[in-house]
Amino acid sequence: MIEDKNPQRTPLEQLGEFGLIDHLTKNFKIKKSSSIKGIGDDAAVLDFKDKQVVVTTDLLVENVHFDLSYMPLKHLGYKAVVVNLSDVYAMNATATQITVSIAVSNRFPLEALEALYAGIETAASIYDIDVVGGDTTSSTTGLLISVTAIGEVDKDDVVYRNGAKPNDLVVLTGDIGAAYMGLQVLEREKEVFKVNPENQPDLDAYTYIIERQLKPEARKDIVELLKDLEVKPTAMMDVSDGLSSEIIHICKQSKVGVELYESKIPLDPEVISVCEEFKIDSTTIALNGGEDYELLMTIAQEDFEKIKGNPNLTVIGFITEEARGMNLITRGEQVIPIIAKGWNALGDH
Amino acid sequence: MIEDKNPQRTPLEQLGEFGLIDHLTKNFKIKKSSSIKGIGDDAAVLDFKDKQVVVTTDLLVENVHFDLSYMPLKHLGYKAVVVNLSDVYAMNATATQITVSIAVSNRFPLEALEALYAGIETAASIYDIDVVGGDTTSSTTGLLISVTAIGEVDKDDVVYRNGAKPNDLVVLTGDIGAAYMGLQVLEREKEVFKVNPENQPDLDAYTYIIERQLKPEARKDIVELLKDLEVKPTAMMDVSDGLSSEIIHICKQSKVGVELYESKIPLDPEVISVCEEFKIDSTTIALNGGEDYELLMTIAQEDFEKIKGNPNLTVIGFITEEARGMNLITRGEQVIPIIAKGWNALGDH
Repeated sequence: MIEDKNPQRTPLEQLGEFGLIDHLTKNFKIKKSSSIKGIGDDAAVLDFKDKQVVVTTDLLVENVHFDLSYMPLKHLGYKAVVVNLSDVYAMNATATQITVSIAVSNRFPLEALEALYAGIETAASIYDIDVVGGDTTSSTTGLLISVTAIGEVDKDDVVYRNGAKPNDLVVLTGDIGAAYMGLQVLEREKEVFKVNPENQPDLDAYTYIIERQLKPEARKDIVELLKDLEVKPTAMMDVSDGLSSEIIHICKQSKVGVELYESKIPLDPEVISVCEEFKIDSTTIALNGGEDYELLMTIAQEDFEKIKGNPNLTVIGFITEEARGMNLITRGEQVIPIIAKGWNALGDH
Repeated sequence: MIEDKNPQRTPLEQLGEFGLIDHLTKNFKIKKSSSIKGIGDDAAVLDFKDKQVVVTTDLLVENVHFDLSYMPLKHLGYKAVVVNLSDVYAMNATATQITVSIAVSNRFPLEALEALYAGIETAASIYDIDVVGGDTTSSTTGLLISVTAIGEVDKDDVVYRNGAKPNDLVVLTGDIGAAYMGLQVLEREKEVFKVNPENQPDLDAYTYIIERQLKPEARKDIVELLKDLEVKPTAMMDVSDGLSSEIIHICKQSKVGVELYESKIPLDPEVISVCEEFKIDSTTIALNGGEDYELLMTIAQEDFEKIKGNPNLTVIGFITEEARGMNLITRGEQVIPIIAKGWNALGDH
């Protein structure tokens, strides 16, 4: 659907491996005080002084995690960075550096990789991180991006998944379900396009959910907000696989139960209307749709006054004793056990 | 060639994504004092106190970097770790942690991934590092492994590529060219096997070079040796793409020239005899064959007494002023400019 009518195509062979890395990374400047040496040696050298270091890594594979027929490469580069930073923020840490490795087949011209790296550079600039390393190699088919993100955090500020206590409040940032419904719309338009390539889709009614799918943001602001509010969550993780799956992780690792309230789960009006259009239950999407990159946390009751009324933070339930299990209380006050049906990259293929 | 006659085959779908990660990583124990939290949260948490941190990453792609028709999966797992650790040692640092991500198609049964992870675990144990994170996902074709290695080093001990000075000695560890010739033998046997699958290859004359290709080692011992000898190289890098390519990197980044002596380049007798068999010039292989994972360093003249006679360290030339260029002095005392023809993962495909 997204197509440049007069694309310039420079074959990758023209540059060779070193030429390609140099070309793609020449705009990356080192800005962080913890980055001593970036790209250009056997390894990057970093100095975190008395801070602890967090490290996380994710692989994105073409036709498993993204579909280039509707994902522009610049957006893909941006998203590949953001999904990793989200894991750093989920530790209550500040993201500082990333490494980016790509495997790419020769069907991609240089200009495609330039677009991908432009997205990476934009994300690095917006989230204030340095690109300090990576690897560029060929693949026999398709495109694969592996990002490792590094962050720093004061020892006393790290938040794990295993600290939730009975009576803690369950708090969610932003709203959820939008990225999944955005994907459904894009998949539908792809099918329409296959049947009639002349059709120009009208996506005006779907701008929010499509943006949530194609250009998600990580909640750097929430880590800063929590610091300002002087709230340290007892547990936290990011919502990448779906709310059900994530709350189960927190409960299992913390050895607690949970009650979530269906009526409290924050949904954007566009998600509700598109769910009606697709005849899907919006709560099912909120529980099981992935890729929202919001933060799910538990906080002590006594911190409630500090977060009350903040538009970024919604209390959606509370932690219970483990024996009470993990349950959703529906609008009709039914008690339904929470089961993970989260997005499963292996099961799908 | 390497085939289990009665392989058990458990489809990956049986486990799902989380089940698979849990299953493959359940034996990985955290041992390093710098590993605060390993696998199981959004990110690993590390604490390096007053040390600097080095980070390096590499992608290995099936049919680009390895061929499973002669590379056993356990060896592949081992090698994927070793090639990354080599970059850490090349900074004069101690490797401490790795993350491992794999993308794998459903043609691989669980038992194949168990073999791969057994190799990763063996390398982690031998090199005394922790596996602290990773990602497991599906691929539409083939197998891809992305490893990020992390190490620590005292600020004053880091060795970059850019510190070589005129009159410094050029020193190489071990011997080179073997991994490349091992690959040639394996490729030849693969062709023989295609023509006659009943043929049992006799590889006794090639044990050293095949081992160098299939199960390379990183020179952790050299970092320790240099410390014991109280020698800090002025520049260092690992020999992954070939001696020519690496010495050019050091010279360009250090803004110096070099004279290497053909007669000094350390070759194993097996490499010499196999080069004769293949009718290839062994110096060409030494200069341009990759994957030896030896360390190439420059040291100040005054440190010569400390390294003299050490069987691990061979002086192969000396650094000159930049204007004198980069040259090989042949056995016949010809002066030949050094050109990088190193193994090029992009150019090959």
